[in-house]
Amino acid sequence: MSGNTLGKLFAVTNFGESHGPAIGCVIDGCPPGMALAETDIQPELNRRRPGTSSFVTQRQEDDRVEILSGVYQGRTTGAPIALLIRNTDQRSKDYGDIAQSFRPGHADYTYWRKYGLRDPRGGGRSSARLTAPTVAAGAVARKWLREQYGTALRACVTQIGELSLGFESWEHVSCNPFFAPLADVSAIEHYLAGLRGAGDSCGARLRAVAERVPAGLGEPIYDRLDADIAHALMGLNAVKGVEIGDGFTSAAHPGSKHGDELRPTPDGGVAFASNHDGGVLGGISTGQDIRVSVALKPTSSILIPRQTVDVHGQAVEIVTKGRHDPCVGLRAAPIVEALLALVIMDHVLRQRAQCGQVPGSVPAWE
Amino acid sequence: MSGNTLGKLFAVTNFGESHGPAIGCVIDGCPPGMALAETDIQPELNRRRPGTSSFVTQRQEDDRVEILSGVYQGRTTGAPIALLIRNTDQRSKDYGDIAQSFRPGHADYTYWRKYGLRDPRGGGRSSARLTAPTVAAGAVARKWLREQYGTALRACVTQIGELSLGFESWEHVSCNPFFAPLADVSAIEHYLAGLRGAGDSCGARLRAVAERVPAGLGEPIYDRLDADIAHALMGLNAVKGVEIGDGFTSAAHPGSKHGDELRPTPDGGVAFASNHDGGVLGGISTGQDIRVSVALKPTSSILIPRQTVDVHGQAVEIVTKGRHDPCVGLRAAPIVEALLALVIMDHVLRQRAQCGQVPGSVPAWE
Amino acid sequence: MSGNTLGKLFAVTNFGESHGPAIGCVIDGCPPGMALAETDIQPELNRRRPGTSSFVTQRQEDDRVEILSGVYQGRTTGAPIALLIRNTDQRSKDYGDIAQSFRPGHADYTYWRKYGLRDPRGGGRSSARLTAPTVAAGAVARKWLREQYGTALRACVTQIGELSLGFESWEHVSCNPFFAPLADVSAIEHYLAGLRGAGDSCGARLRAVAERVPAGLGEPIYDRLDADIAHALMGLNAVKGVEIGDGFTSAAHPGSKHGDELRPTPDGGVAFASNHDGGVLGGISTGQDIRVSVALKPTSSILIPRQTVDVHGQAVEIVTKGRHDPCVGLRAAPIVEALLALVIMDHVLRQRAQCGQVPGSVPAWE
Amino acid sequence: MSGNTLGKLFAVTNFGESHGPAIGCVIDGCPPGMALAETDIQPELNRRRPGTSSFVTQRQEDDRVEILSGVYQGRTTGAPIALLIRNTDQRSKDYGDIAQSFRPGHADYTYWRKYGLRDPRGGGRSSARLTAPTVAAGAVARKWLREQYGTALRACVTQIGELSLGFESWEHVSCNPFFAPLADVSAIEHYLAGLRGAGDSCGARLRAVAERVPAGLGEPIYDRLDADIAHALMGLNAVKGVEIGDGFTSAAHPGSKHGDELRPTPDGGVAFASNHDGGVLGGISTGQDIRVSVALKPTSSILIPRQTVDVHGQAVEIVTKGRHDPCVGLRAAPIVEALLALVIMDHVLRQRAQCGQVPGSVPAWE
Repeated sequence: MSGNTLGKLFAVTNFGESHGPAIGCVIDGCPPGMALAETDIQPELNRRRPGTSSFVTQRQEDDRVEILSGVYQGRTTGAPIALLIRNTDQRSKDYGDIAQSFRPGHADYTYWRKYGLRDPRGGGRSSARLTAPTVAAGAVARKWLREQYGTALRACVTQIGELSLGFESWEHVSCNPFFAPLADVSAIEHYLAGLRGAGDSCGARLRAVAERVPAGLGEPIYDRLDADIAHALMGLNAVKGVEIGDGFTSAAHPGSKHGDELRPTPDGGVAFASNHDGGVLGGISTGQDIRVSVALKPTSSILIPRQTVDVHGQAVEIVTKGRHDPCVGLRAAPIVEALLALVIMDHVLRQRAQCGQVPGSVPAWE
Repeated sequence: MSGNTLGKLFAVTNFGESHGPAIGCVIDGCPPGMALAETDIQPELNRRRPGTSSFVTQRQEDDRVEILSGVYQGRTTGAPIALLIRNTDQRSKDYGDIAQSFRPGHADYTYWRKYGLRDPRGGGRSSARLTAPTVAAGAVARKWLREQYGTALRACVTQIGELSLGFESWEHVSCNPFFAPLADVSAIEHYLAGLRGAGDSCGARLRAVAERVPAGLGEPIYDRLDADIAHALMGLNAVKGVEIGDGFTSAAHPGSKHGDELRPTPDGGVAFASNHDGGVLGGISTGQDIRVSVALKPTSSILIPRQTVDVHGQAVEIVTKGRHDPCVGLRAAPIVEALLALVIMDHVLRQRAQCGQVPGSVPAWE
Repeated sequence: MSGNTLGKLFAVTNFGESHGPAIGCVIDGCPPGMALAETDIQPELNRRRPGTSSFVTQRQEDDRVEILSGVYQGRTTGAPIALLIRNTDQRSKDYGDIAQSFRPGHADYTYWRKYGLRDPRGGGRSSARLTAPTVAAGAVARKWLREQYGTALRACVTQIGELSLGFESWEHVSCNPFFAPLADVSAIEHYLAGLRGAGDSCGARLRAVAERVPAGLGEPIYDRLDADIAHALMGLNAVKGVEIGDGFTSAAHPGSKHGDELRPTPDGGVAFASNHDGGVLGGISTGQDIRVSVALKPTSSILIPRQTVDVHGQAVEIVTKGRHDPCVGLRAAPIVEALLALVIMDHVLRQRAQCGQVPGSVPAWE
Repeated sequence: MSGNTLGKLFAVTNFGESHGPAIGCVIDGCPPGMALAETDIQPELNRRRPGTSSFVTQRQEDDRVEILSGVYQGRTTGAPIALLIRNTDQRSKDYGDIAQSFRPGHADYTYWRKYGLRDPRGGGRSSARLTAPTVAAGAVARKWLREQYGTALRACVTQIGELSLGFESWEHVSCNPFFAPLADVSAIEHYLAGLRGAGDSCGARLRAVAERVPAGLGEPIYDRLDADIAHALMGLNAVKGVEIGDGFTSAAHPGSKHGDELRPTPDGGVAFASNHDGGVLGGISTGQDIRVSVALKPTSSILIPRQTVDVHGQAVEIVTKGRHDPCVGLRAAPIVEALLALVIMDHVLRQRAQCGQVPGSVPAWE
């Protein structure tokens, strides 16, 4: 119940620092009986992993995951699943010179105020490296959701700095190192090359969708599905904004256009004529696609000198060398998908708990 | 730990339905020894209350709060504080005709899918009326924060439908019924009159700020301060987007502009030269103002006929009569302030728990 | 999630003080669709109520419960169920003289140390009166368990002070005011009359059983079913010991006698040949009866003078007048049943959440 | 928040199985700034470790603990502390023959009913081996408590099977392999030799004490300090009974003897004249010693044949070979101490959170 756990029933407790011995997580509450091996998790980690293009950090981490518990003879037992990733490429010397100063845009100052001390090696616990355990846990959740409901999770980058990408097709996303929904990414390469030449960085915007999510997920007040999605996504490093459905453009909508109308389907069911609300009404899933988007701020580690203060209160100039992504948003897509999966998984279990007996409220389990 | 509780240590459990006997909440974890009476809470409820202009619902509710427990001789005892608000103006007949249909944009369909049944009277638990207990609890939190730190919370409306308001001054906000930061609100009145004439509704955008928030609040991963703020605000009825600091515009920022530089202050402290990150770095408060903004969708209850489906799966046309706000965002400011206060309060107690011994991490208590 | 909530998924938050305006609770997480009215709860409150014999406090409280929320047209909706009981017979003058001293055996001193102040009226929040909301919530849980599984909960008194009662039959328990499993209670009356004549009090021992509890309830480590039962029962006023199954006598058992053997049943199932372990193995229910016993200390409020200290640190003598039970254990049976019901209910929902798909792990729901 | 976590603010999440790759835990919420190294934890693990006498299992496990996170330059950072213990001596063949049957007194049947499958290797997650991470986490808590308050935790065995040991002195406890408070343990050796010769096992009883615990710890209702102690201790493998203070003998006490009187101390403080209530009044610590006792049932794995059922529903006879303790209680003392430390630690942080500003409610921190 302390702060480093995500989820109430599918509860993921994250541990580790960028340059400590290891990072990882413990998943408590996974349903028993699901086939699970490291090979189900590793591909998601590989998608998130640095080093996949010249525009992301060249730190070389295998991110090799080991399942320490909760699986017997290839199946989940219902016991906690501990996932371990050893850190192997920790060049702490890269970071030694910044231990005494507070880098602008980083968590250096706030950790120091909060804890009275901080682990400066690679940003310690505030490093984006700590999203790896989240992605690993998300791989477990999305496998279960896929097997039970066919739930699919996708994310792509729709804006890089001042470059708005547009959206061509989901099928392009896995064919370029930018998670861009475009066939031709040369404009992105050009833009990033310019940024790198200037020693600068930029932000990004992503969109994500969860398809085939059961209706009925979410609590009426406070722990709404959209609220928990916002919590998970705003909790991701560098995220400064979260939207559900039409998001901020909703403010300008007239009610006569915004509210999604319902229609009978030929098989006696119900369909929506539109999805302005992004698959959530009153905090509860409608059965439509869950649509979200997020904005990430620019990478704070840049080669351009900036003004700051050191731990002795003296004004200093700082340049953050090291191996950094010029745009952290370029690696966020698998993480956003994982976070969505974790929130949906948790709410499926919550819904089973309270409303398991409601006919059709949760599709039949096998 | 179920879904209708906000906060871990300053934990507010909300109960009630729009047209049931009563609404209210229980606050568990309030520090002892604070002076508290109904008169500390009632003014905040009055700010949220309907009936304050011709552009909000004319439902007449006193929203008279009663403290049932947790206070002795005018001081909090540390025991749970139960707050009760009786419903008095329940005209259920206004809603009788919609019990059999799913209103577009409402939670009718999702509640029915989740629970297999629903309370249709005034929207039941999905009614915005259920924000009153949140406001009441928020009044307790903000009193404590104000007394301990001088923390101040403010919110205002910055956009109404397609009308962007701009920002003149906080001092105007309490002088008009729209929580608008403007001296002259005639444009708003004109806009809303047109909307009402058309039987339509619109969304809104608000900004809020929390001043004098201690540095060091928030957990490093998952339960970050910004994540919990996003959870609280996205959990508010009709909210579809949440931003911290520069929010979505951060995506277009270069790192060389975005990261807030630090400067020494004459008294040996530290100050920031800007606040693009909205007072949160690495999920932890910096001591600067917490800056957020939210978007609310348009009121779903409108007089313009809409297509939907009834509980028997038949296509029907629906018009939502009754007493509705044409723009729910016009009453959201006190609620946004209350939610911010509740999240900050919870994190102050969490910070005391773990880091109470860190020098200066939490200002001295009296 | 603060301290005054019992249960994680069927979460009961208790509020109130003995002589405040009201006591009550909020139940969050109750499954929807169950028929529920005040008349389902009131009988359990009446069983717990004082004034039913000359040997319990003569305070006259109706303990009239009102359902404030979560029920529509006689059925639970899945929304929080708030239960309110107004205090009506608060003779605060009875307690005025003890506000300045710490009564031996009472919580006066510890509340004062914890909170820096305390509500002395009738013991404030430490009064046994606060078990009434627990009993009310338990009535909701036991109704659901009875309807789903036929679960039955019973408790009786087996020892009063130095008087060991033996056990004749459950059927006697409701036929005397002592919850004694005896046809003839004259020995009890004689014993209590002697105690009352001396102005003294005594402790008690109770046994309880839960029948027809599904197998599979409980988490493997920490939140075991027996651990959560022990938490609930040790949390009851005056309880100083809790046993599951054979309890403390287990220490002297040889393994060759203690371990409950299994046998095939004619219908292909499994039966146990004995129940030394009280229906719990490895922290998880076996499907056998859950057997527990508890010990309560004597009532601390007695007419015999005792030595103590006042809030100014001066030695004083104190006599606790007022309306007190000479043996608080005599009213504990309905409360112990309620606590057992609440723990089992919570674990049924937890089991549904994680293992809902395991064949037979949770009996079919209707 | 799922079931394998102990504590709300000092939250220990346990993972692993007896014969899986590793066991361990994650501690979330540890205060920053405390000196911590593996050498602070290893001695406690060594005390719990098997193989220390001929009367405990001869399984050879180093139980070598590795700190994976949360410590930087020898000090806790406030980030989660992950502790890892690799399993090295897993002779699974010892257990292969019991995978198809339900051993009496074991969790085999209940795990199978709960999860639909189970890990039979060495008892899987139900093995007493999983107490090692609890002991490791407890070592962290007790170090912090010792440094802040001088809190000391001690436990000893007071009964082994039918052999009541009496109590001579705490100083003997560490001088014999039975945690017995006796100078001469020959009677114990004789008793256990007889038991081993018969292929049988026995239970045990332990007492424990926590000295120098701050007053004011514990919540008034439900999460009382004694309730949480009972939860922790009843959650320990084989425990069937828990007592606080005088425990079950309290039932026979008259109120005129039981209630602990208070006396002024020469320095203006308050002292208690006795400690029948074991240091807890109204669920809150008094500042006296916390006194508890527990009963453990006999080891279920014995060489004497017993009747049971296999997974196909057939009656079978079973003998549990392997390396087992004839009396599991003989290794429980360090675990009981660890559990007490964890509960007290959690409540110290909870008390800081809510009542940090109450003068004297929590002693000054350095």
